[in-house]
Amino acid sequence: MAAQATSPMELALGEAAAAAAAGEAPIGAVVVDAASGEVLAQAHNRTERDNDPSAHAELLAIRAAAAGRGAPRLPDCDLYVTLEPCAMCAAAISFARIRRLYFGAYDTKGGAVEHGPRFFNQATCHHAPEVYGGIEEIRCGELLTEFFQGLRD
Amino acid sequence: MAAQATSPMELALGEAAAAAAAGEAPIGAVVVDAASGEVLAQAHNRTERDNDPSAHAELLAIRAAAAGRGAPRLPDCDLYVTLEPCAMCAAAISFARIRRLYFGAYDTKGGAVEHGPRFFNQATCHHAPEVYGGIEEIRCGELLTEFFQGLRD
Repeated sequence: MAAQATSPMELALGEAAAAAAAGEAPIGAVVVDAASGEVLAQAHNRTERDNDPSAHAELLAIRAAAAGRGAPRLPDCDLYVTLEPCAMCAAAISFARIRRLYFGAYDTKGGAVEHGPRFFNQATCHHAPEVYGGIEEIRCGELLTEFFQGLRD
Repeated sequence: MAAQATSPMELALGEAAAAAAAGEAPIGAVVVDAASGEVLAQAHNRTERDNDPSAHAELLAIRAAAAGRGAPRLPDCDLYVTLEPCAMCAAAISFARIRRLYFGAYDTKGGAVEHGPRFFNQATCHHAPEVYGGIEEIRCGELLTEFFQGLRD
């Protein structure tokens, strides 16, 4: 029996756990070729390690996938991320022409898809992906809750 | 008589002109240490050259300044950019804790400071810089108009 391939959201959760272990906010993202299912890039937050305020999981995964493809746009790709993207990452998803966005936990404080600026609903947003939220919502959220509780202890 | 230092917005305009010459959208950005006036980084759009949808002038300048400082936040720095930032760059400016944002032309189609999501006015925006718009607005805008007219010719 062939081993079952790990789902993109499982890979993203693994990235999020690796981020927590490295002292970074536990958020992971994966970019997948929509037709083949091939994983083009996976990343977790690295803002502290890289001294880069833009080094969110989504931005890093999109940049790596685009560099790998040799194209600044990824219209045939889907993005999986453990947390609702912020405005920076939502706009980058739009610029990259990502086909579908699958995200885990909702982010009432900094999310920009279902909260705050609701970027994809703005008239100034020129490409919106299909959006699927709340995937493995509890596991994605627990990683964040445990991490930030640990920081306060 | 000492030579007068080039102003940050002049440097940003020079970056924008260099972008146009390279076939990139003519937008330039400069990060300055607010106390000393030292230029920490300057950049222009490189989305096509780098195959990176996030390679806007502001993001590149912020990333370079933060890497140079060895810190993911730049609370004592100001950013000059020739065009009103988009949502991606506005959020990155917020994450970087930039003190003041000086921008040139207004961007009714993709701007996110005075248009669209008005990111800094959102309750989910946790740091907003002081904002000064319309600086060298005509020159900044003309570079863009000429570039996009040239693409259509």
